[in-house]
Amino acid sequence: MTEITILTEAQLQQCIGLDVETMEAVEGAFTALAGGTVVMPPILRLDIEEHHGEIDVKTAYIPGLDSFAVKMSPGFFNNPKIGLPSTNGLMTLFSAHTGLVEAMLLDNGYLTDVRTAAAGAIASKYLANPHVDTVGIVGTGSQARYQVEALKLVRDFSTVLVWGRSHEKAEACARDIADKLGVAAEVRSGVAEVVAASQIVITSTPATEPLIEADWLHRGLHITAMGSDAEHKNELDPGIVAKCDVFVCDTRAQSAKLGELHHAISSGAVAADFGVDELGQVIAGHVPGRRSADDVTVCDLTGTGAQDTAIARLAFQTAQTAGLGTRFDT
Amino acid sequence: MTEITILTEAQLQQCIGLDVETMEAVEGAFTALAGGTVVMPPILRLDIEEHHGEIDVKTAYIPGLDSFAVKMSPGFFNNPKIGLPSTNGLMTLFSAHTGLVEAMLLDNGYLTDVRTAAAGAIASKYLANPHVDTVGIVGTGSQARYQVEALKLVRDFSTVLVWGRSHEKAEACARDIADKLGVAAEVRSGVAEVVAASQIVITSTPATEPLIEADWLHRGLHITAMGSDAEHKNELDPGIVAKCDVFVCDTRAQSAKLGELHHAISSGAVAADFGVDELGQVIAGHVPGRRSADDVTVCDLTGTGAQDTAIARLAFQTAQTAGLGTRFDT
Repeated sequence: MTEITILTEAQLQQCIGLDVETMEAVEGAFTALAGGTVVMPPILRLDIEEHHGEIDVKTAYIPGLDSFAVKMSPGFFNNPKIGLPSTNGLMTLFSAHTGLVEAMLLDNGYLTDVRTAAAGAIASKYLANPHVDTVGIVGTGSQARYQVEALKLVRDFSTVLVWGRSHEKAEACARDIADKLGVAAEVRSGVAEVVAASQIVITSTPATEPLIEADWLHRGLHITAMGSDAEHKNELDPGIVAKCDVFVCDTRAQSAKLGELHHAISSGAVAADFGVDELGQVIAGHVPGRRSADDVTVCDLTGTGAQDTAIARLAFQTAQTAGLGTRFDT
Repeated sequence: MTEITILTEAQLQQCIGLDVETMEAVEGAFTALAGGTVVMPPILRLDIEEHHGEIDVKTAYIPGLDSFAVKMSPGFFNNPKIGLPSTNGLMTLFSAHTGLVEAMLLDNGYLTDVRTAAAGAIASKYLANPHVDTVGIVGTGSQARYQVEALKLVRDFSTVLVWGRSHEKAEACARDIADKLGVAAEVRSGVAEVVAASQIVITSTPATEPLIEADWLHRGLHITAMGSDAEHKNELDPGIVAKCDVFVCDTRAQSAKLGELHHAISSGAVAADFGVDELGQVIAGHVPGRRSADDVTVCDLTGTGAQDTAIARLAFQTAQTAGLGTRFDT
């Protein structure tokens, strides 16, 4: 007989937002990863091709923390046809001492959205130039909106340029960003235009062919590519990985398997043992990151179990303090 | 907003037992595995060495079924010192069409116990000789008891011989088996004695060194080894894999990585490409299994995500019919 706490998406939205506390928790996960003692097994991935679906399971144990999360993220891409969101999911928080379930976070993917956006902002915080006027966002989904919102916590930009395959969705995304953040937000009809005018570009798409060409890089640019989290996904021309001054990823193992590094290696743009720094190493000051205002920096984010453990713990702690959640005897 | 059903261990014990329905469901999982279309990724395993703990995550999609389970099994081996069971866990049942959570089965490992015992009985059903007087059980934990109980559904034995490292625990195990099944149950002080007198031997231990020697094999013997489910675990002398007439496993991939086949290959007792039949192939009649009453047959069970999907679906269906469970809006 154990007692667990069940938290719904609505309750988790009360507990967790894009704020300094979230940023600190996610930054802590990356710093821990840089320490080399985090236990983070490869992602478990189940594909259900006949229903155009998949589920990813991520986890990580961060030494010293008394709990860890197992996150289940389904993506079923026929769902919008029947009025359901494509992505979904939940997290389970376990005691790191006994393995007993402490909490079920029925977040429908909300905590993943937040920790992913926080990671994007952290990448820009440590890699982009301090002064940023214009931010380009490639992609028009909810994560595109979250990324720009999180970025506002670390850079004081005034203009956002949006590109999407659907002009209508790009207009809606730009409107939402302008309303939420009080910045100018405009749609551009080509990705090249967006890149040329921006100091930071974020790609947040399910693209399987590169959207940004190596020729488009310009001095001082920072790119965060967060769309590719599966073998077939690819947002950046492989030449960008070879050509940029600093290429950083959240975890080398995942980027080489699922992310932009994967395509850079398989296309021959870089060698299989291409040296890559991890975001946590940059945060911890183990490696320099950007060395001059002219450097072109690129960060590839595939999403880590360490971020999931960090956000799940923060959510549960906040919920406990606020007295939120339903207790359940099992 | 989705509605999920939460089922507690007590409710799941009402729904699922060691009976014909359970056996059919688990047998169906093995038959599906033999069909070659089941999607079953490698086990995700997280080790927390500083707390002598681990968590395994298993899953499988069986084509044609409208849901699939993700099972999380923690094992924390310091727990008994503080009065908690070592193993624990829960299953989440997802729609195979939308990825939405249908049910959370808070079983504390009960469904794993049942589906593991059912698999052992299925192995004996298809591989052991029809007439069995005496069953040997090596190991004295709850799974040892479940294995013998499940075996009674498929073989009409009259005597059980029990061996355990602790004589006291072996006595308790023998008493429980005698009380529950109405058979004679006696403790033996050596594994060799148990093997010599039995037609079926089941090993259900966390052993890391072989408990049964190849020299002890005798005509007509069937062994089910279900303890080894991790790289360092090993119950059978590697020579047994080479010497027996029929070596079968639940899944070759897992047995070669985590089970008895792993040690047989790494010790050089058999070649890395040693041909092994899977239990589902025997059930489906694709391969013969036992060919004569004198054959020595061995089945290595590592535990499959397909069994978890099968038992979770059966549990949820039964609970729905019985009106059990708590509905929860997320």
